Amino acid sequence: MENVFVNPGKEQWIALCKRPAFDYAALEGIVLPVLADVKANGDEAVKKYAAQFDKVVLTELLVSEAAINEAASLVHDDLKKAIQLAKNNIQLFHESQKEVIQKISTTDGVICWRKSVAIQNVGLYIPGGTAPLFSTLLMLGIPAQIAGCNNIIMCTPSNSDGQVNPVILYTAQLLGIKNIYKIGGVQAIAAMAHGTESIVAVSKIFGPGNQYVTAAKQLVNREGVAIDMPAGPSELGVYADETAIPAYVAADLLSQAEHGTDSQVLLVASSMAIIDAVKEQINIQLNELPRKEIAAAALKHSRFIVMENSTDAFNFLNEYAAEHLIIASENALELSEKVINAGSIFLGNYSPESAGDYASGTNHTLPTNGYAKAYSGVSVDSFVKKITFQQLSKQGIINIGPAVELMAEAEGLQAHKNAITIRIKQL
Amino acid sequence: MENVFVNPGKEQWIALCKRPAFDYAALEGIVLPVLADVKANGDEAVKKYAAQFDKVVLTELLVSEAAINEAASLVHDDLKKAIQLAKNNIQLFHESQKEVIQKISTTDGVICWRKSVAIQNVGLYIPGGTAPLFSTLLMLGIPAQIAGCNNIIMCTPSNSDGQVNPVILYTAQLLGIKNIYKIGGVQAIAAMAHGTESIVAVSKIFGPGNQYVTAAKQLVNREGVAIDMPAGPSELGVYADETAIPAYVAADLLSQAEHGTDSQVLLVASSMAIIDAVKEQINIQLNELPRKEIAAAALKHSRFIVMENSTDAFNFLNEYAAEHLIIASENALELSEKVINAGSIFLGNYSPESAGDYASGTNHTLPTNGYAKAYSGVSVDSFVKKITFQQLSKQGIINIGPAVELMAEAEGLQAHKNAITIRIKQL
Repeated sequence: MENVFVNPGKEQWIALCKRPAFDYAALEGIVLPVLADVKANGDEAVKKYAAQFDKVVLTELLVSEAAINEAASLVHDDLKKAIQLAKNNIQLFHESQKEVIQKISTTDGVICWRKSVAIQNVGLYIPGGTAPLFSTLLMLGIPAQIAGCNNIIMCTPSNSDGQVNPVILYTAQLLGIKNIYKIGGVQAIAAMAHGTESIVAVSKIFGPGNQYVTAAKQLVNREGVAIDMPAGPSELGVYADETAIPAYVAADLLSQAEHGTDSQVLLVASSMAIIDAVKEQINIQLNELPRKEIAAAALKHSRFIVMENSTDAFNFLNEYAAEHLIIASENALELSEKVINAGSIFLGNYSPESAGDYASGTNHTLPTNGYAKAYSGVSVDSFVKKITFQQLSKQGIINIGPAVELMAEAEGLQAHKNAITIRIKQL
Repeated sequence: MENVFVNPGKEQWIALCKRPAFDYAALEGIVLPVLADVKANGDEAVKKYAAQFDKVVLTELLVSEAAINEAASLVHDDLKKAIQLAKNNIQLFHESQKEVIQKISTTDGVICWRKSVAIQNVGLYIPGGTAPLFSTLLMLGIPAQIAGCNNIIMCTPSNSDGQVNPVILYTAQLLGIKNIYKIGGVQAIAAMAHGTESIVAVSKIFGPGNQYVTAAKQLVNREGVAIDMPAGPSELGVYADETAIPAYVAADLLSQAEHGTDSQVLLVASSMAIIDAVKEQINIQLNELPRKEIAAAALKHSRFIVMENSTDAFNFLNEYAAEHLIIASENALELSEKVINAGSIFLGNYSPESAGDYASGTNHTLPTNGYAKAYSGVSVDSFVKKITFQQLSKQGIINIGPAVELMAEAEGLQAHKNAITIRIKQL
């Protein structure tokens, strides 16, 4: 069977964990001139590219209050209730991420603390196209509001009639986001990074997008605008043992595979029998899916790996560092202690990735491409800076001053020493 | 008087807050070939560049245990005690940054939490040259140890005899850091990013360096290696009102100015009388400094600003977003409520920047160049990923499943819906 590996040795792991390389640098030639043009010519350039790339003639960039208010009437009540439920859960979990100030007396007379302060101007990019990703707006807008960001700018492309999807507008209204611009693509990233007549420049840009948007985010990041994280195609790793339910594992793998033909899917199972059973279920379920061509293409470069030893299995999964990791086992909580690298972990047979994608409460903006080794997903932390404070009393500087003087001198920094000496001399 | 501005209008603020632009891209031509050579040829290439750039012939890259053990005998006892005091304070403050796991029940049967897990392989770059920056090693090594990083790699250049400064080695030993490589410059960043025969590749690189090191960090960052933060010259903003002590303010400005001719120094005072008094003190103190030429050159591009209104003063300082911000006022704590953007804040007349540079307990690796608008300084957070978890019971999926089904369908993702449906149907 293709794509199946049984107890692969460690020398094979790096190759098995490899994601397809995508050369964003190759897009620079297309993206850089658009960024420069928007920086130089503002709204006019944004409108020009909207016409050129998105085939839409925009007279206004800002979505009107009337359009926002009208959106609610275009969304079905059941969907509204579902969005409200998701919002409540995401809010509850993200509220718990707010850091309480702790004042630490490190030495008598020396008090240190840190305070989370919202990034004032943030930009949220919500892709449009065939699927209106209002769930991503929940995942970015809710922590931005909890953090207390002063000015939340949102960009999302309109259709060719200049209309923005009403579910996205309804969700924005629910979150209290008012600065909504109906622009997408590189021109939207450029507008948020540099500012235009209509759009305030932001300090940090969040959100997923196609390869051009990703390249644009990386390029403005080099010029000093922060971004949420480096991006790559979405991916799912599943660990399944004999207590897993193959039909559920198959459904989870398919839910990742339908995202796009470049989606990454990886199953590590404790026996070949499990892989066989999951593959059988995939074949049954795949045919029912409207996006079956996409899912089938993604599955072609998926990997099915037997690891009879669970420690090896998790060592391998740590090397992979999956964006989403499902542990399909009745023993999931205990097994999860072995995980060192992952974006978000789904425990047991009743925690599908879909739950976290929409409504469990965790964030779905997560590190892909192995970045989970060093990066975290989006959280309230992503929307704040943690500023440190120190306050020394006269006694405090008497207590630590002599140590500072010695260390500054040893580093050859006499003026650093003098800033202490001049104070201590007068005490 | 040059560099003095009285109540500048808002239209001038952006220009007054501007840092000198440094074009790291211009260094790419020098840095990229070194990165590529080390990636391809490992230790051999590292040794070649050590000979070429640092004029040192290295037979071994790893600092020997004997050299590390010998270092302690070469450091004066008073300096050892000072380093121990600093270590204790830094440790106390950074220990308070460890996040406790909170399990949040977002809906009956749905539990979410996040866990901080150390980044396994991290690299610390400690510059050598004239000043041995052992304080930077404290600032990076202590949070790395608290986070629980498995493998802490440290690179620091040797002198031309292949010896590393003993204070740096003593500090490393005190922190329990054993993997010390006596290499510097671009070749050190390349070795940590890509790994060599002697050096394990790391997931994140920390530490300051010259313009080549900075450019190398930015370039490996594009290839997926995380870095602590984008870098620029060190800088200090001071707010002083009539309760400030001009001699102390002058000493603090000089302590920043002595770092390098490109250091940034900015004083915002509530009256011209304060600026006059501070300038007078600068003239008196400057002559006593061994690095007076450097400090004088840095002061040439410093700015002295009178802001009679304290709200304007702090609005301006928020636009500047200083790496270090001293509030030289008896009213500092209250005034600090107005600060939105800064790396670290020093409150009152007895909290000089030197205190935080070495021993108060806060971290001295901080965002420069206005990055404090979106970035935080180094903390324990910088050495961990925060992995999220969710665990749904059967009741949990019954409770939130229908909402997920509706939302997935509205986003056109049928397989996402099916991952829920297949489970609910059997319950």
